[in-house]
Amino acid sequence: MTITVHLGTRSYDITLERGAIGRLHQLVNLDRQVLVVTDDGVPSQLSQAVLDQCPQGRRLVLPQGESTKTLPYFERICRELLRYSFTRKDCLIAVGGGVMGDLAGFAAASYMRGIDFINIPTTALAQIDSSIGGKVAVDLCGVKNIVGAFYQPKAVIADLSALDTLPPRQLSNGLAEAVKAGLIADPQLFALFEEETLDLASIVRRSLEVKRRVVEQDETEHSLRAILNFGHTLGHGIESSLQLGGLYHGECVALGMLPMIEDPALRERTIKIFQRLSLPTGGSFNREAIWEAVHKDKKSQGNGTITLVKVPRLGQARLDTVPLERVRQILFEEAWI
Amino acid sequence: MTITVHLGTRSYDITLERGAIGRLHQLVNLDRQVLVVTDDGVPSQLSQAVLDQCPQGRRLVLPQGESTKTLPYFERICRELLRYSFTRKDCLIAVGGGVMGDLAGFAAASYMRGIDFINIPTTALAQIDSSIGGKVAVDLCGVKNIVGAFYQPKAVIADLSALDTLPPRQLSNGLAEAVKAGLIADPQLFALFEEETLDLASIVRRSLEVKRRVVEQDETEHSLRAILNFGHTLGHGIESSLQLGGLYHGECVALGMLPMIEDPALRERTIKIFQRLSLPTGGSFNREAIWEAVHKDKKSQGNGTITLVKVPRLGQARLDTVPLERVRQILFEEAWI
Repeated sequence: MTITVHLGTRSYDITLERGAIGRLHQLVNLDRQVLVVTDDGVPSQLSQAVLDQCPQGRRLVLPQGESTKTLPYFERICRELLRYSFTRKDCLIAVGGGVMGDLAGFAAASYMRGIDFINIPTTALAQIDSSIGGKVAVDLCGVKNIVGAFYQPKAVIADLSALDTLPPRQLSNGLAEAVKAGLIADPQLFALFEEETLDLASIVRRSLEVKRRVVEQDETEHSLRAILNFGHTLGHGIESSLQLGGLYHGECVALGMLPMIEDPALRERTIKIFQRLSLPTGGSFNREAIWEAVHKDKKSQGNGTITLVKVPRLGQARLDTVPLERVRQILFEEAWI
Repeated sequence: MTITVHLGTRSYDITLERGAIGRLHQLVNLDRQVLVVTDDGVPSQLSQAVLDQCPQGRRLVLPQGESTKTLPYFERICRELLRYSFTRKDCLIAVGGGVMGDLAGFAAASYMRGIDFINIPTTALAQIDSSIGGKVAVDLCGVKNIVGAFYQPKAVIADLSALDTLPPRQLSNGLAEAVKAGLIADPQLFALFEEETLDLASIVRRSLEVKRRVVEQDETEHSLRAILNFGHTLGHGIESSLQLGGLYHGECVALGMLPMIEDPALRERTIKIFQRLSLPTGGSFNREAIWEAVHKDKKSQGNGTITLVKVPRLGQARLDTVPLERVRQILFEEAWI
C-alpha cells in the first residue's frame, strides 16, 4: 500500500509492501547516477537488490553503529558524491536503519544544497518512525541529532520482508515507537499490542499514519510536531548518559515515556506491553549524567524551562513547559527507574 | 532604507544604511544568547560594536580567507554553540565578507536544524551579492560551495560605512557583481558605472533590488534564479584553477562574463567599465585546469551538457544549455583571456 505525505512541493509516497525493494525501479527513477549508502550490519543482499536495478549505481558501505552518525562520515559521503561528479539530478539512496537514514539524508540535503534522497529503512525502528518526517542529522560531542536539517525524501520504501531476519530485540526497539504513536494519538494502535498475536503490518501502517498526520500539520516542529518527542527528553538523556551505547534508542524512549503517562492505569497497561516486548521498565542508571544530558537537549529553552510531552489519557498528548528543576525531581525523587 | 525580501514565512528585511550596526538592537532581538562569528581580517571594532549591544554575547574569531570556508570550521562553530548550550531561540550573527556569511550561515542552518541567523556583510561583495538570497555553503576538495543549504537570514544589515575602509581592489571585487546585476536585469544600474562619479549607495541598492526580485521568484534555483550565475560558470572555473587564490571572486566573475555577452558593443562598454574599476579583462591562465573545474561544477548536468547564462542585450539574460564541449571551444579556441 501507499501512504502519501502531503507537504506541497515536498510531498512524497511511502510504499509499505513486502518485496517492494525488488520493484524499486517501478517506484523511483533509477536511470541516473545513484549512490547507495549502507552499513556493514545491514544484510548486503538488500543493498545488492537495489544496485542490481541501477545502471549507474555505486555502493558505499560504512561501519555499523551510532558513532558513524557524525561529521567525518557526513564528509565521507559528500566526498564520494564529488569524486564521481554527482550532479543535482542524481540521487542518493540509504539502505539501513535510522543511523543510515539520518546520516545519508543530511548528506543528500547538503550536497549541492540538496539532491534527491530515497530512504529504504530496513529496521523496525526506521520503518515505523525515523524514515519519515524529514528530520536528518548527525551527532556532535555525544549530543544526538544536534547538527542537521529538515529535508524530505523523494520516496520511502518500507519493505516488510526486511524485518524477517531482525533479532527480536531489534524488532522491539522499533515497536517502542509504535507504542508511543498509539499512546499519543491512536488508541486502536495501542490496543493492537494487547492482542494475542502481533499484527506487524497493521502496527507499522497505523504508526506511519500517526506520524504522517502530525508531520503534515507541522513540518518543521514549531508546535504540534513536538508531541512526537513523547518519551524522548528523558529517553535521549538516558541514551546520552550511556555514551550512546548499552541500550537501544527505542528502549531508552520506552523508559522515558513511563513517567510522562499521567493515568496510573494506562501506565500499568503500558508496562505490561513493554514486558511482553522485552522492553526495559527500570534499571540502574547514572542519574547525574542523565540530568547533565537533559540540560544540553535541544528541547531545553535556555530560560531554565523545558517542554515535556505528557499523555493524560490514551490517545492524547499535551505539551507542558516546566522548570528544568522539575526534571531533576523526576530523576532523583520519584521511584521510576 | 529597508528592502523587504518576500518569501512567505521566511521573509526578511535588508537594512541598507550608514551606521546601521550602531543601532542593531533596534533592528533585531539581541536579548538572548548571541554568537558573533567574524574573521581576523574584519576590523574588530565592527564585531565589537555588535557585542556591545548584546547582554549575552560571545565572539568567535576565525582566520581570514577562503580556506576557512570548510567543514572543519563549520564544526568549530557548531561546537562553540554546543559548548554554551545555545538553544533554538538563540542566534548567530556573521560579521564579515562572503566567507563568514556562507560559513556561519550554514552553521546556523544546521545547528539544531536551524537557529536564527543575522548577516552583517562588511565587504562590497557581500553587501551587493552574497548576503542575500539564502545560499549558504562550504567548499570541499577545492570545489566551491559544494556542501550547503538554502537558508534565509532573519535580517541583513548592510552598513555602508563598513565600506569606507576597504582597499580599492576589494571594493571593485564587489562592484563586479553589481555590473553583473546591471547586465542581466537593470540597464539603469549598468549606466551608473558610466557616470563621472560612482554613486555607491545607489549601486548597492539597485543591485539588491535585482537580486531580491530574482530570489523572490525562485528561492531554490529551479529556473529563473540561475541567471544570477551569469559569469560564474567560467568564473568559478578560473577561481578553482587558481586553487582558490590569486584573483578575487568578483575578478574571476568579471572574466567569466565577457565571453557570455553576445552584443559586441555591449561587451566593449563592459570592458571599459572593468578597466575603470581596475578589474581584469584578460591574463594568462591554466586552461586545462579551468576546463577540469568546469566539469565538476554544480551547473554541469551529468549528461554532457551545461547551462550557460548569456546576455543578448543590456538588461536581458537567457539560459543556454550547450554540450560541455562548447565550453572547451570557448576556453581553447576563442581569443578571450
